[in-house]
Amino acid sequence: MSERLLVVSTDCHAGLPISEYKPYVETKYHDFIDMAVDVQVDMMDKAEAQFLIKDINDAWRAPIKQALTGAWDYKERSKMLADDGIAAEVIFPDGITEQNTPPFGAGLGLSPKDAVPELQWAGAMAHNRWLSELVANDPKRHFGVASIPLLFDVDQAVEAARWCHENGLKGVMLPTMWGEHAAYHDRKYDPFWAVCEDLGIVVHFHSGPAPLNEYFGAEFPMVDSSETLPGAMGCYVSEVMFWLFRPLTFMLWGGVFERFPKLQAMVVEGGTMFMVPSWLRLLDHNYTDIHFSAKLGDFRSHLSMAPSEYFARNCGIGASCVPRRDLDLKEQIGLKQIMWGSDFPHPEGTWPNTADYFSKTFAGFPVDDGKAILGGNATEFYGMDEGYLRSIADEIGPQVSIFNK
Amino acid sequence: MSERLLVVSTDCHAGLPISEYKPYVETKYHDFIDMAVDVQVDMMDKAEAQFLIKDINDAWRAPIKQALTGAWDYKERSKMLADDGIAAEVIFPDGITEQNTPPFGAGLGLSPKDAVPELQWAGAMAHNRWLSELVANDPKRHFGVASIPLLFDVDQAVEAARWCHENGLKGVMLPTMWGEHAAYHDRKYDPFWAVCEDLGIVVHFHSGPAPLNEYFGAEFPMVDSSETLPGAMGCYVSEVMFWLFRPLTFMLWGGVFERFPKLQAMVVEGGTMFMVPSWLRLLDHNYTDIHFSAKLGDFRSHLSMAPSEYFARNCGIGASCVPRRDLDLKEQIGLKQIMWGSDFPHPEGTWPNTADYFSKTFAGFPVDDGKAILGGNATEFYGMDEGYLRSIADEIGPQVSIFNK
Repeated sequence: MSERLLVVSTDCHAGLPISEYKPYVETKYHDFIDMAVDVQVDMMDKAEAQFLIKDINDAWRAPIKQALTGAWDYKERSKMLADDGIAAEVIFPDGITEQNTPPFGAGLGLSPKDAVPELQWAGAMAHNRWLSELVANDPKRHFGVASIPLLFDVDQAVEAARWCHENGLKGVMLPTMWGEHAAYHDRKYDPFWAVCEDLGIVVHFHSGPAPLNEYFGAEFPMVDSSETLPGAMGCYVSEVMFWLFRPLTFMLWGGVFERFPKLQAMVVEGGTMFMVPSWLRLLDHNYTDIHFSAKLGDFRSHLSMAPSEYFARNCGIGASCVPRRDLDLKEQIGLKQIMWGSDFPHPEGTWPNTADYFSKTFAGFPVDDGKAILGGNATEFYGMDEGYLRSIADEIGPQVSIFNK
Repeated sequence: MSERLLVVSTDCHAGLPISEYKPYVETKYHDFIDMAVDVQVDMMDKAEAQFLIKDINDAWRAPIKQALTGAWDYKERSKMLADDGIAAEVIFPDGITEQNTPPFGAGLGLSPKDAVPELQWAGAMAHNRWLSELVANDPKRHFGVASIPLLFDVDQAVEAARWCHENGLKGVMLPTMWGEHAAYHDRKYDPFWAVCEDLGIVVHFHSGPAPLNEYFGAEFPMVDSSETLPGAMGCYVSEVMFWLFRPLTFMLWGGVFERFPKLQAMVVEGGTMFMVPSWLRLLDHNYTDIHFSAKLGDFRSHLSMAPSEYFARNCGIGASCVPRRDLDLKEQIGLKQIMWGSDFPHPEGTWPNTADYFSKTFAGFPVDDGKAILGGNATEFYGMDEGYLRSIADEIGPQVSIFNK
């Protein structure tokens, strides 16, 4: 019998169609929700019209319409995982693609901009309640990442983290951008890092957020600016990794991993990982080379290790749909940091062509490194039950032959 | 006779002590200026107290107090250039170091934040008037870069660019950050790029600006946040290059160099140049690899070349005080793009130890490449009178022996 691989996707998405969240929202917010959903759907339609190419997305969706309901339907989801050969998944909220996002802007990105804090909390907790039901179907297989609008209220976030832990959610997603709020080096967040460290809750930042109005104009998404602002999308795709890694820049310098040495943080959908080595080098340069910044004083002595050392000890990268040329930088990025993800159900993801992606991307790749990236790193980082997942992998995992040249 | 090198510093600073700008400010603003100067001096004192280490800077200043007046005094400035072996210099406004900055926030950085547009224009034009007198002492030797608050009014900026050109100023410095204003891919700036291309005016962005309040807190510089926001300075020094190169990211994607193929742009005080190769690679990746961003549509067809090709044709880097390890990346960055600068009169600059810096940094460096970086690239990029500068260099230039091992 040929060997099957234990594959973990560190980047999957799930969420109800927005209007179906109502039963999960506290009743006191029901007066708001219908109106809010209408507005949010309208905004999503407009954003999608300007942000995504309808023809390409519609063509992609057409043959898989039923399968896409796996974004919220458990049976379809199980089929998807089996088809993709995925033994375990890390589940984030969803975005605009299938309009299956929590209400009140509480989904992917979790932007504080224009948000009403109390309502965004209500939407986030509605999603968390639903997600805790979803993962209860097979808790060792589904690692649920809760939405936590940390910026608005640290005490509330601490309480929410405890609720999540008690209800089977093992990770939290925080806003990638903090807007006008305090950045992540602020010691005000220490109680939140403390509860995450204490309960073994993994902190996540997900890619996507960026200052869209700078690229697409102040009126985005209500006004099409493609004539007046050429190249806006090029700016967005060239900067989005900067915005994703920015929370870690602040946490690393802020000494968060010095004070909370067991805290774990993931940056997810870190495509174009070839930026990572120069980002790490820049951080270490500023940690070790004091000559050029002597006039700025000592901003290092609260850190006992170089930034890249904390990164290697405490952080990971959700390397969704990672191309081969980035995998070949594994030593410079840190082999253990790289954890593959499928990005289901997004069109840029590998699903439903994951098998194809595996054999194209991993042909000739060192087998042990490939196993680590596809599953081993994630089971270790997330403390997953490897024995249990191995029994699933033995049924559905891709063949080890994907590494053949 | 041993050969002397023709050295150009592409990063020098000059400006009057702030209160002495008054005669250069239009009389209708005189009612504002005294009060505004008091406020600005107070802000600079507070910013310096929190941003710079007083002891280090005072110790650095003490033995060179008289020489530092070269920041505005022409005789002292000539001595400084002779001592440093610099034949020609590119002159920017100054910052807080010697409090010799134009009033109304019109100096280095040229931040639109909290600025009163009409007053910032008044301060900028006061500086430009003074600068045009300074460079008139020896116009072929001093390349004056005017302050232009472009964001507030493009028509006024076009008019100001014409005034600068007529008054001997050959470059313009634009705000590095645009705040709430339109970014540099906006076609509204086309008339400004057109006049710069037409008159051969070189566009400059200078390092330093960054979202300081995100690092140092909302109350910076009025409140010391070093206890509550540890590592703020580490965040700043790790991000400042991102903010410097950001205008080029937008101009490159916006097709500015496609529509204005002779426009020239410099990013100045581009320390930690080792970020440049990965920045160029990321831009080109997004230009050439359409697979992962197909759903985002075509955002490339308005560009006939890859971003790195425009960069090589139209752009340069003011490589102030550049360390050897960055010079060794010359092929990946682009040899022709690298132009040395001394950063006079800033403490992080090479002055007054430039001779020392030269021999330590360039020992064993390829001679032709070293000549290009120290002077040849700049004379060509800026269209300087090489014959005239050669006669100065023959008197004061450093010996070619700095390249000896």
